[in-house]
Amino acid sequence: MPLLTQAELDRLRVVLVSTRNPLNIGAAARAMSNFGLRHLRVVNPYEPAFREARSAVGASSVLARAEQFKSVAEAVADCALVVGTTAVRHRNLHHPLRQLEDGARLIRRRLKSGRVALLFGSEKIGLTNVDLSHCHWLMRVPTHEGNISMNLGQAAAVCLYELIRDAKAPRLPEKLPPAKAAEVERITAMLLDALHESGFLDLRRVADSEQRIRRLVRRLNLPARDAVIWLGIFRQIVWKMRSGRAPEK
Amino acid sequence: MPLLTQAELDRLRVVLVSTRNPLNIGAAARAMSNFGLRHLRVVNPYEPAFREARSAVGASSVLARAEQFKSVAEAVADCALVVGTTAVRHRNLHHPLRQLEDGARLIRRRLKSGRVALLFGSEKIGLTNVDLSHCHWLMRVPTHEGNISMNLGQAAAVCLYELIRDAKAPRLPEKLPPAKAAEVERITAMLLDALHESGFLDLRRVADSEQRIRRLVRRLNLPARDAVIWLGIFRQIVWKMRSGRAPEK
Repeated sequence: MPLLTQAELDRLRVVLVSTRNPLNIGAAARAMSNFGLRHLRVVNPYEPAFREARSAVGASSVLARAEQFKSVAEAVADCALVVGTTAVRHRNLHHPLRQLEDGARLIRRRLKSGRVALLFGSEKIGLTNVDLSHCHWLMRVPTHEGNISMNLGQAAAVCLYELIRDAKAPRLPEKLPPAKAAEVERITAMLLDALHESGFLDLRRVADSEQRIRRLVRRLNLPARDAVIWLGIFRQIVWKMRSGRAPEK
Repeated sequence: MPLLTQAELDRLRVVLVSTRNPLNIGAAARAMSNFGLRHLRVVNPYEPAFREARSAVGASSVLARAEQFKSVAEAVADCALVVGTTAVRHRNLHHPLRQLEDGARLIRRRLKSGRVALLFGSEKIGLTNVDLSHCHWLMRVPTHEGNISMNLGQAAAVCLYELIRDAKAPRLPEKLPPAKAAEVERITAMLLDALHESGFLDLRRVADSEQRIRRLVRRLNLPARDAVIWLGIFRQIVWKMRSGRAPEK
């Protein structure tokens, strides 16, 4: 079950402001496509970069359908919530700054009823104060203090992932069905045969060696699908040792 | 409060396998730096790409310190957990497939006690079946069915973000410390010897039998304390079969 319906995803506008590198425009479009988003807007891009990105081999339908605007004001005019992204760690004096997870939760809620614009600034300087003045609040990726500034395409990928990530998805680490105790015991018995035949146990004489081996096999937590293979392996090994012939070389 | 200590972050090895594009190596290194990770390993990169990435202006210290390996086996040898990343949506026949969030939680837990390798395959084909046979399980980003395949640098950014994101996950009980990949691989090699000596593999001729056995052993999730015992068991069995004598009765 996806967290957002396609109708809700279609209410998000990813807005790239003054992007310079065509690869970054392409990368943002690719991440959008990866996460089911379709509406890209570019504001005042470096023209050759935008043309190059659009005409690149394999340019996505997201890029082909991108809308171009002259100002942030025009690009966000039909949106009910405008969110800026930033690498800044400390609280901006003018805007509330939210952690990515909290911000994504608010955006999801707002997408139920209206359009939301998510702004990414230029590679060099990010969003300017004028750009930011159009935003209701800012959101930041929790980057490490040693290097807070993310690549634009990667920042977009992380923000969009957080947006579509289903935090309430059932968390059932998928385990393989385990082998039944009787199968595990048959393997244990066959392994014990192999250990006797090979002399392994003679070298390590302890009173409770059989119990130790039993516990050793239990700690494998064998999946059911593998039990028959391991039984076959030990059976063949025992047969070979009992046959007592030198192996063909 | 960071979710992982620097010591824990420093136990993660990001492993790029057969990467072709220098920009992607650089992008993965940048995302690592953004999220406080420092240890990059590259396996069999396209040499000019690796050299170019390393010598690029602004190449990070992560890239400068990257270690190069000839095989996945060598690159993961000192790691106790090996995780592959994949774009595949459906249940992989050979490996447990975990959602990114679940996988990240398990990785965080394992980083408390040992090294973890996180593998990313090549841009074109991802991780091969041979690469995957070194993995304990696979993890996938929840991409949209219309375009599941992510750019390498963006996939790395999203996976690493999920790893460091503080989900306030409840602490789960510690498990037995797992065996390192090199030990598991030694056991695999000794088991393969035993299977050849016993004729087990002759009876079941398939092209990828070695990979199947490698996966079979990985599915045991051997605890470190048992690795030496299993190695001893198989060594003794092989010795016995090679000695070719009938057992004393």
